[in-house]
Order: sequence, then structure tokens, then C-alpha cells
Amino acid sequence: MAGKQINRSLLKKDAPIGVFDSGVGGLTVAREIIRQIPNEKIIYFGDTARVPYGSKSKETVTRFSEQIVRFLRTFQVKTIVVACNTASACALDALERDIDIPIIDVVKPGAKAAWEATRNGRIGVIGTEATIGSQIYTKYIQNLNRDITIYGKACPLFVPLVEEGLLEDPVTDEIARRYLTELIDIDIDTLILGCTHYPLIRSTLGRIMGEGVRLVNPAYETARELKEMLGQLDLLDEEPLGLGSNRYQFYVSDKAEKFVHFANSIIKYGILSAKAVNIEEY
Amino acid sequence: MAGKQINRSLLKKDAPIGVFDSGVGGLTVAREIIRQIPNEKIIYFGDTARVPYGSKSKETVTRFSEQIVRFLRTFQVKTIVVACNTASACALDALERDIDIPIIDVVKPGAKAAWEATRNGRIGVIGTEATIGSQIYTKYIQNLNRDITIYGKACPLFVPLVEEGLLEDPVTDEIARRYLTELIDIDIDTLILGCTHYPLIRSTLGRIMGEGVRLVNPAYETARELKEMLGQLDLLDEEPLGLGSNRYQFYVSDKAEKFVHFANSIIKYGILSAKAVNIEEY
Repeated sequence: MAGKQINRSLLKKDAPIGVFDSGVGGLTVAREIIRQIPNEKIIYFGDTARVPYGSKSKETVTRFSEQIVRFLRTFQVKTIVVACNTASACALDALERDIDIPIIDVVKPGAKAAWEATRNGRIGVIGTEATIGSQIYTKYIQNLNRDITIYGKACPLFVPLVEEGLLEDPVTDEIARRYLTELIDIDIDTLILGCTHYPLIRSTLGRIMGEGVRLVNPAYETARELKEMLGQLDLLDEEPLGLGSNRYQFYVSDKAEKFVHFANSIIKYGILSAKAVNIEEY
Repeated sequence: MAGKQINRSLLKKDAPIGVFDSGVGGLTVAREIIRQIPNEKIIYFGDTARVPYGSKSKETVTRFSEQIVRFLRTFQVKTIVVACNTASACALDALERDIDIPIIDVVKPGAKAAWEATRNGRIGVIGTEATIGSQIYTKYIQNLNRDITIYGKACPLFVPLVEEGLLEDPVTDEIARRYLTELIDIDIDTLILGCTHYPLIRSTLGRIMGEGVRLVNPAYETARELKEMLGQLDLLDEEPLGLGSNRYQFYVSDKAEKFVHFANSIIKYGILSAKAVNIEEY
């Protein structure tokens, strides 16, 4: 991790983990964290007033991300997970420069897993315009091995299709076929799902790519890396919470009710409420 | 117009007209204004950092709209055109309450034109979730005639499909068929295009609805009402500008270059530049 020195005195074992995304996509990351380290507390923020980030500029996504980190730090979080590929691609450098607690993004773990998975050295990445345009996956993977070739493809309609709930639908199939054809033609053997919405259409993507292509879900890899890092820093929460304790708290910048509905369909934990905050004030 | 008294001393004939939208959709309104009253100057603002508005709450859309009006007023505009159905539906009441210059929205002119067009008293409205959820078209039309029945249908995928440029495409056809089938089944004779993006897929919508259904484009009606109002107030700009004068100025909250590209495909006027501003500061 580059950037500022970590201030160990700020880090308490029983503090929550801060997780954020432009909206609901980061819930696929929260879900993996809950599965892999169920004792941890989570403060989740979804920027539903300004979603989506994927079509916006690096400067704007960075400004939004900085506001969210300031908000999350009011909860004395022990670490921050940037659970959004676009924010990881656009804002991580700026966030790391200024922060004195550990911060984990979704791109590095996904890049590493894809590098480990490929046999033929040809990896595809799908994501938003901003993520693909940043070439961030290419940079990380070629840092690991310069001989690997990475093919990026922006898939801007996947997020609205997922948000509309068309997870298994002929229209999603048709759009996916258009986006993926060129990746099939160049014979990749590994495909990174470079947007936290995409695991929700994983079966469609898998069917179109065929059995020979391994799909990498950075959400899973991120939770694994988070667990490892917390272990190394002796920061894993050891005290299982009692029933009824407020282990997971959800905040959004707009439409709390709609968020709760969507969140319950992903996490299946019985999320009762989300609070709306005016993030522009942070 | 309800709300505050208009302060005539603020209104100069040669002042610009302020026009705003969540992004590029309002350019279909600006295009009509340019066609119908070509001598007028325009300051256009597109909120490309926070687009789309259609899936967001009334409170959030109102806060965003108030910031934009404060920004536009720094140019001493003589009137404001809310060139966005969602902002018209969500924010017009709040904006009118506080403003002392004339303000025109896209919903009232569209509602009036649909009322004049229908023969069988059955009108359909398509728009964003927020616009349809507000029932604003129903309220305005039933104020004119309580016997008219209005059928609203939210079409959330149209905006991303238009933004992706799929204006004539089998996928847009398929999605449009799904959204419009119920409106065809209940035998409407008039359909309001209740989102400023929709005129860009007018030919698809017209083909699916069939020849018996009249499509109402509020952009056209809004420009006509604007011209009439400026005439009544003796505020029409009479001095044609010379070549090279800066008649149309475009501001956005993000991605100025992408905006200019899109704007040129809609307005075909040779827009050279758009300036980016941080709208959260207003």
C-alpha cells in the first residue's frame, strides 16, 4: 500500500469496516465479507443520489469518493473497502495519499486472481466506461507479468439492465452477446467481472463465454484479501455479536427504501432499514 | 404561474434564457427554442455529474434543481426553462415559490397539447419512474378536463438505450414493445413523450404505436409557450446577433467533451465547447 503511514493507534479490533459503492453493486462485496468473516461489523454507504459512477470523469468520481471516506471515518472504521471498480480505478491513488488507516480496493485482488487463473496468457476484463478507459487492470496484471495480454471491453448497458432486474432475460442475453463476441473471438481463457453489478448476471455471462473460460469475481477475492490483511494486523474481530445487535448498518444518499428492497434480494440477511444522508455536506 | 411576484426590473430583452436538464435530454428542448426563436441567447446547463434524475427522489431532484437555478441566475437570465420532465415533476413547485423571474416547465405545455389532441379521451404518458410516480401529467390534464383518462408507464431503460446510441436497434424495439403493449391494449389515441430523451427514438415509438396514435413532444410545445410568454412580456430579443457572437453557451457538471459530441449530434449548430462547473458549490 502506497501513501500515508498507517496510524496503528486508530485501529481497534471491534471497530466496524467501512464499505462503499456508487449504489447497490458493492453489496456483492459486502455479501462476500459477511460470508468469509461473519464476526465483523460493517458500515455500508451507497451513493444512490449520484449513481452511476461508470460514465463519469476521474475528477468527479474522486471528489465523490473523498466525501464518502470522510463520512465513513465519522464511525471510526478500522479499514475502508472501495467496493466499486470505478471508484477503485479513478480514486484509489488520491484516497491512499491522504489516509492513515488501511484501504482495500476491488481491482488489485481481481487482477491477481486473474493472473493466477490464466493458462494461455489472454485475459478479458469487462467493466464500466471509466474502469475500462483507465486501463487499471492492464497496469496491475502487467506489473505481475508483462507477457500477459489484457483485452478490455466497456459494457455500459449491464448496470441499467441489472438495476431493472433483467437478470435472466433475452434482452440481456442479446446485449451480452454483442459485448462479448470480440472477447470470444480472441480466445481469452479468463474473464474478470470488473464491475460489482456483474456477478448478478454471472450465469448469463458464463453461458455465453462457454465452459473453457474462467470467470473471476473480484468481490470474492477482495473479501479474502481483507480477511488476510486484518489477520496480519491482528485486527480480526473475535467477539461474536449477540442476536439483535446492530452488526450491519446501511447508509445511502437517496431512496433508502428502494435500497433496502434491493439489498435484501442480494444479502438475504433481513436488512430492516437504511438511513439517508446528504453526502455533499461531507 | 403561482409563487412569488415577478420583478419586471430584472428582465432585460437582450438577456439570455436559462435552460437546464439532468444531462443531454434537454438539448431537444434547446433545439426547438433555437428553431422557433432564433434571435434568443441561451445558457444551457446539463447536470452530467449526477445524471440521471429519473430514478431519484423528489427531495434530491429538488435540491439539485435549486443549485442549478442559483447557477443560471448568475448570468442574469430573463427566464428559466426546466427542460427536464423529472425536474418539472419534482421541483417546479419549490422553484416557483422562490423565484422572481418567469419559469417555464415542459410538463404543462405537453399536458395541454395532449388534451387538445385526444379525440377518444384516452391519453398515455411515458417517462421516468419519478415523472410517472408523481402523476403530474394526470393532475394537469384532469384540471383541464376531468373526463379524460390518463395511463402512465415508466420506461426506465429508454434513457440508457438512447445514451448508448441504440436509436434504431432491435433491442430498443423489443424493450419498447414490452413497455408500450399495455398502452396499445387500452386503446389510447395520444401518447405524451414525457422525457426529453424520447424524441430521439420517436420513429421507433411511432412505428410500434401505429398510425392511429398521435405522439406529443413537449419540447415543441414548450418552445411555443416560451415564445408566446416572451412576446406578452415584451421580452423577445429583437437584435439578431452578428456572426461569431457567443449566442449559445453550454455548461455541464462533468465530461464536457462527451457532452459537446452528443450536443452536436442533436443541435447541428457547430457547438465548439462546454465548460465544466462544480454545481455542488451553488
